Amino acid sequence: MSQFDVVVIGAGPGGYIAAIRAAQLGFKTACVDAGLNKAGDAPALGGTCLNVGCIPSKALLQSSEHFHAAQHDFAEHGITVGEVKFDAAKMIERKDAIVTKLTGGIKFLFQKNKVESLFGKGSFKGKNGDLYQIEVDNHGEKSVVEAKYVIVATGSVPRPLPLIDIDNVNVLDNEGALNLIEVPKKLGVIGSGVIGLEMGSVWKRVGSEVTILEAMPTFLAAADQQIAKEALKIFTKEQGLAIELGVKISEIKNTDNGVSVSYEAGGAQKTETFDKLIISIGRVPNTDGLNAEAVGLEKDERGFVKVDDECRTNLANVWAIGDVVRGPMLAHKASDEGVAVAERIAGQKPHIDFNSIPFVIYTDPEIAWVGQTEEQLKEAGIAYKKGTSGFGANGRALGLGKAKGTVKVLADAQTDRILGIHMIGPMVSELVAEGVMSMEFKASSEDIARIVHAHPTLSEVLHEASLAADKRALHG
Amino acid sequence: MSQFDVVVIGAGPGGYIAAIRAAQLGFKTACVDAGLNKAGDAPALGGTCLNVGCIPSKALLQSSEHFHAAQHDFAEHGITVGEVKFDAAKMIERKDAIVTKLTGGIKFLFQKNKVESLFGKGSFKGKNGDLYQIEVDNHGEKSVVEAKYVIVATGSVPRPLPLIDIDNVNVLDNEGALNLIEVPKKLGVIGSGVIGLEMGSVWKRVGSEVTILEAMPTFLAAADQQIAKEALKIFTKEQGLAIELGVKISEIKNTDNGVSVSYEAGGAQKTETFDKLIISIGRVPNTDGLNAEAVGLEKDERGFVKVDDECRTNLANVWAIGDVVRGPMLAHKASDEGVAVAERIAGQKPHIDFNSIPFVIYTDPEIAWVGQTEEQLKEAGIAYKKGTSGFGANGRALGLGKAKGTVKVLADAQTDRILGIHMIGPMVSELVAEGVMSMEFKASSEDIARIVHAHPTLSEVLHEASLAADKRALHG
Repeated sequence: MSQFDVVVIGAGPGGYIAAIRAAQLGFKTACVDAGLNKAGDAPALGGTCLNVGCIPSKALLQSSEHFHAAQHDFAEHGITVGEVKFDAAKMIERKDAIVTKLTGGIKFLFQKNKVESLFGKGSFKGKNGDLYQIEVDNHGEKSVVEAKYVIVATGSVPRPLPLIDIDNVNVLDNEGALNLIEVPKKLGVIGSGVIGLEMGSVWKRVGSEVTILEAMPTFLAAADQQIAKEALKIFTKEQGLAIELGVKISEIKNTDNGVSVSYEAGGAQKTETFDKLIISIGRVPNTDGLNAEAVGLEKDERGFVKVDDECRTNLANVWAIGDVVRGPMLAHKASDEGVAVAERIAGQKPHIDFNSIPFVIYTDPEIAWVGQTEEQLKEAGIAYKKGTSGFGANGRALGLGKAKGTVKVLADAQTDRILGIHMIGPMVSELVAEGVMSMEFKASSEDIARIVHAHPTLSEVLHEASLAADKRALHG
Repeated sequence: MSQFDVVVIGAGPGGYIAAIRAAQLGFKTACVDAGLNKAGDAPALGGTCLNVGCIPSKALLQSSEHFHAAQHDFAEHGITVGEVKFDAAKMIERKDAIVTKLTGGIKFLFQKNKVESLFGKGSFKGKNGDLYQIEVDNHGEKSVVEAKYVIVATGSVPRPLPLIDIDNVNVLDNEGALNLIEVPKKLGVIGSGVIGLEMGSVWKRVGSEVTILEAMPTFLAAADQQIAKEALKIFTKEQGLAIELGVKISEIKNTDNGVSVSYEAGGAQKTETFDKLIISIGRVPNTDGLNAEAVGLEKDERGFVKVDDECRTNLANVWAIGDVVRGPMLAHKASDEGVAVAERIAGQKPHIDFNSIPFVIYTDPEIAWVGQTEEQLKEAGIAYKKGTSGFGANGRALGLGKAKGTVKVLADAQTDRILGIHMIGPMVSELVAEGVMSMEFKASSEDIARIVHAHPTLSEVLHEASLAADKRALHG
């Protein structure tokens, strides 16, 4: 029986990074994963993120943005094109090639770092003295490995909607939404979170009529509401996404004409029939088949593996990271927990500040933030000052043809320490990195205001918002 | 006669910012500028940067990038377009509209901040006790204002080439290069600096055959040479720009067939005839007509107004900032000096760290850096370590279709303090902001390595390069 120092269960962005870091620190490490490629004929590492999440969605977003630009932006630049046609299957092919490249990259990294990659579904079998026994089930062909340390990184799965089953034919989860090879005429999306908005944007841009139905009365409730309101206005009024809030869905059924959804919104009963329906109402921790009971691994009432701030479970030498534990379900949070846990096993003392983990939504304009929202500060009774600046008069944004959006800096009223940075605008997915660093260094808004920002760049809007927080905007 | 606390001569990015900041600090402030709009029928604030520099070039770069994408990238995304046609005049119109919007914006900011905008060429006339007399010459209609403090922000002008005069018909400077309303079949560019490369890229993308002739034997001598070499390879081998180094030009003349350039390169004598020729061999300080002699304002042997580290000239209460003084000719350096000088006049103690001023070249891929190059560190005998990472396996870069380039982090061998960050790749103009902040906070490469970076973003490549500096790349 193979013995390892560390066995990681799951090769998503939490697990594969944890395995590499553990191996780098000198541990004999294996990573167990049952993920298959799209064709279903070969293992594919990388988990949801690489295969059916963050990465493929970014590929489709860019393709659809090109298509949209050709139709709507080119004339202004002096570019005329003939008839613009779109081949969704080709877009999906490109996306698949990117996914294949990256999942193959992890295989290479495992080899390079001497991480043993074990194909199959990993579960707890029991203990042998101090060692944990992990069963690897490769479609019924079972083997068992032993490890002193186990890192559970089994991720999450789409939250099911009791009203209808996902078939990925007409009723789709994230995976199905990323693999449509024809543009649906009418697309329904249930849930206006990251996945709903990104997928809704992709298919809207390439010609679908898109309706997003959201149960919550508030749009992007986790985001700063000034930014959320600006986003909602742009998505609905300017881009033509139909977004209904406070929706109560009573029935969903497959019909000859598509998927029929009956719901109540704004006091009215409605029924809409869609060619395709995406269900994106959040994700739940994935512990099915983990056999946590075999070793007594504790879960909380919502199904998350219970961990402390440092990812320790109730069992000695068993750790858990990423979507399967508390905290935001974000790939980079999972990766950083993976690194930290490997280092903790090695006796190091890494620290993750959960307050400086950035959030990004890749709509157009993009949305990104780090730290606390105005709503959170008000609720906590923290006195703050704020500075905002827009992209409307930013030279780079105008040059790019993307001069929409706002940056807001929130700082402590007394100390000026930055408490939150909230952005909607072009490439704010990248601008937020400076915000994260400012929070990690406990910077004040004056620090950002005094740091030179290259001209002409989008980052000047963050600079200007920081000046505004001190009521001395130069361009405000 | 009008009296002011502060008179700023020049309304470029140094001068207009200095004027606004001075006014905000309570000084009665005027800003003198003789800039005209493109039509020549109305004042246009903003100097070279806004009117014929940074801003208009960014507009053309985006237009030409769209055109290039339509022809070369779209097929892969599943987008087919009919015949793609390009109307250079329309591209220039869009550019002009952006310039007009932004120069008008400064007018508005002057009004809002109560900066008096004086139209005309500003020069020193003499002194009246402690007050400096500044003459404002509006095409022969002269007036004089007095000020206790003067800030000289007269910027720079293109360096002339003795061999031929700029006529902006066939022999162009930056202004002419930004206003071609037909795509030249053969375009020559003398000088492979920022302007030469950006303009060469614009016209190459929209169909010109472009040859860049550079006197220096080294490409982008100021940049880190690893990055410069990668850039040269991409520009020449992949993009088809012809770039000749170590060129000695013997003759340039206008002929019936265009502009003929005779030069020696690589030991061979060559003569090329271009439809248009851009001269971009650097810029020189603009003090013509300033009448510095009237008050005894000292210049150095190269024509720069002499200043100390804090922009003080040899005259009490006369300051100078931006391109007209030592240091890199960069808009953001000028703006920051403008703010600092206004604050110094007000008795504050601001500080600018010239070592953390970023440089950006908006080619595709973009080039950006901050701090010292490997060549500079070697010459200074500083022991350093380095980490590099490429965009080739970065998920966001692959999604964008721009997975080319490298980030290099240089850190002190002993202390790990970041000494320089050098980048070529997509949107590195924006990524460099995090590098600047890291240098301002005297961060170590480990600091960047331990800060969470959103996934999937381009900024992860900087994260990875920082890990590599510590020999623990996760994706290397």
